[in-house]
Amino acid sequence: MTEFQSKIRTIQWTDNCSRMVDQTLFPSEYKYVDIKSGDEMFLAIRNMIVRGAPAIGIAGAHGIVLYAMELAKENLSKEEFITKLLEKADYMKTSRPTAVNLMWAVEKQKEVIKNSTKDISGIIEELRENGIRLENQDIEINKKIGDFGAEVVPKGATILTHCNAGALATVGYGTALGVVRSAFAKDKTIQVFADETRPRQQGARITTLELTMDGIPTTLITDGMCSYFMKKGMIDMVVVGADRITANGDTANKIGTYTVAISAKYHNVPFYVAAPLSTIDTSLQTGDEIVIEERCREEVTHINGKPVCADGVNVINPGFDVTPHELITGIITEVGILKPDYKKSIAEAFGM
Amino acid sequence: MTEFQSKIRTIQWTDNCSRMVDQTLFPSEYKYVDIKSGDEMFLAIRNMIVRGAPAIGIAGAHGIVLYAMELAKENLSKEEFITKLLEKADYMKTSRPTAVNLMWAVEKQKEVIKNSTKDISGIIEELRENGIRLENQDIEINKKIGDFGAEVVPKGATILTHCNAGALATVGYGTALGVVRSAFAKDKTIQVFADETRPRQQGARITTLELTMDGIPTTLITDGMCSYFMKKGMIDMVVVGADRITANGDTANKIGTYTVAISAKYHNVPFYVAAPLSTIDTSLQTGDEIVIEERCREEVTHINGKPVCADGVNVINPGFDVTPHELITGIITEVGILKPDYKKSIAEAFGM
Repeated sequence: MTEFQSKIRTIQWTDNCSRMVDQTLFPSEYKYVDIKSGDEMFLAIRNMIVRGAPAIGIAGAHGIVLYAMELAKENLSKEEFITKLLEKADYMKTSRPTAVNLMWAVEKQKEVIKNSTKDISGIIEELRENGIRLENQDIEINKKIGDFGAEVVPKGATILTHCNAGALATVGYGTALGVVRSAFAKDKTIQVFADETRPRQQGARITTLELTMDGIPTTLITDGMCSYFMKKGMIDMVVVGADRITANGDTANKIGTYTVAISAKYHNVPFYVAAPLSTIDTSLQTGDEIVIEERCREEVTHINGKPVCADGVNVINPGFDVTPHELITGIITEVGILKPDYKKSIAEAFGM
Repeated sequence: MTEFQSKIRTIQWTDNCSRMVDQTLFPSEYKYVDIKSGDEMFLAIRNMIVRGAPAIGIAGAHGIVLYAMELAKENLSKEEFITKLLEKADYMKTSRPTAVNLMWAVEKQKEVIKNSTKDISGIIEELRENGIRLENQDIEINKKIGDFGAEVVPKGATILTHCNAGALATVGYGTALGVVRSAFAKDKTIQVFADETRPRQQGARITTLELTMDGIPTTLITDGMCSYFMKKGMIDMVVVGADRITANGDTANKIGTYTVAISAKYHNVPFYVAAPLSTIDTSLQTGDEIVIEERCREEVTHINGKPVCADGVNVINPGFDVTPHELITGIITEVGILKPDYKKSIAEAFGM
């Protein structure tokens, strides 16, 4: 298999800082910013300069290295250094409290801190190495997801996706868009239809940007159009990412995903979820247990700072919805494509 | 039944011009504009200063009066006047291709032109009278639709609607929102969920405006959210308008309607179309024969004049989609609610 060479590298440890694409500038600018302190990283995560659960995880891991480098200048004993650094690590977790990958990556760094037998500069070196290892691991996992997914992409397929589960949501290859990249590497006739994904328009702002940068033909549509194109036979498959998958395969993803899944079922279009095993939360039995974040009304009532509706209107703005497992054709992971019955295939993937 | 008194009058023949609400200014302004020539009316329709199939029909009828008034100044023989006016009438029909009401209303004016025994100023007078008659008829028809529809609205219902089939899409009461108005007149506990309706956001800009002006509780949601709320049992029925209905009940309406209909079917939520008989085009057997207008890419790529996506992206922007008759619970008309088999019930409604 030819490996796809993406132009996108969302986040990378570089010299003595964390270099990341500033995602608040999309789609007008594609610009790198160097994050040089732990507090800067906290704000970069909170203010969504970096977004996408896997990318946030790596940002958090880098942030611990930055905090460690700062504390090293304070002439602390090793014990004081470790105590203060663990406090900073717990603080970092609060930058985006819902992103599970952030907790996971920060915990990985905390293990390094607790288990190291080195002196302060040695601990910093181990944290830096671990941060880079997590980076590379993320790309490797995405490429495996991409390769497994590419096997079920028909020749010349048009792939519909919702939101952005791309290189820009991860370190650099993507989950749903990793499948697209791997498929495109061996078949230049495939193309993507991207839902704009209201209210925050990640499909319009981010997915179209990263795919056109990588030369993959992309058509932008509004969220209500998917059924029109499916009925015309213009969509061969749907691939989306996931924010959380429960033990039975129910999948929380960006609001609007469930509507696409229903339409795909109605038109007999295969509907795939692409996500690393770390997105599967086997402690939850079904999607009913997933708490859905409700976001602010301005995301719906305003676009580019201007109101798009009457003042007196009420708004409900759920950030995610749950697609029930019965609408999902397969879950593409780094260990292969899990198929129904998901309760069984997920348990097997986890060696349970 | 208490009749609902709406504050909205979308279009009205006033003095020697057609006065209409300028719908391009929503939601920031609610302002009237006087259309004083046939070509101005052509542009008002094309540029969607007036929109909504029934309102466009009346606008077209008014436009013929304006063309007639202009031609009357050219010292033509009655024969020349009629020939030129019929040409102008056919030209007016091309301002918006999908709205059948435009064709219907212009044809009504053409009948007046062809059948009149009067001189030129007499013909103009007859056209003006006919235009006003069509206006009043539209309101009467809407109120009948509202009353029939209100009978199937459950007590305390939450009604989902897509786009704007309201007072502002008609002369002044609405088809889908006419059903809402008539239901609200007898039950103040009903409420509306309004799809924002991308790309042109008629739901956000227009439906929320007219419903809040009339004091009807309204919640704005994005187009991908409908399934989320249906699954939660928060939507009791869907009522939408129509741009064209074929002899078998297939219904062309604003893009995104078909997606809502599929979701309604999946969740067993009743899905109604509210439209006057003039929207039913019995010359077409099925929805496959309806030509779908494709609109410009900027409607999708830009919001409030600012780009929301990458430059190199492709766009397909169908203005309408077709909801197949099997997804429609009933078609609410001024002669009652037509039910499946639509081929039969529509033929009966037309006395065929």
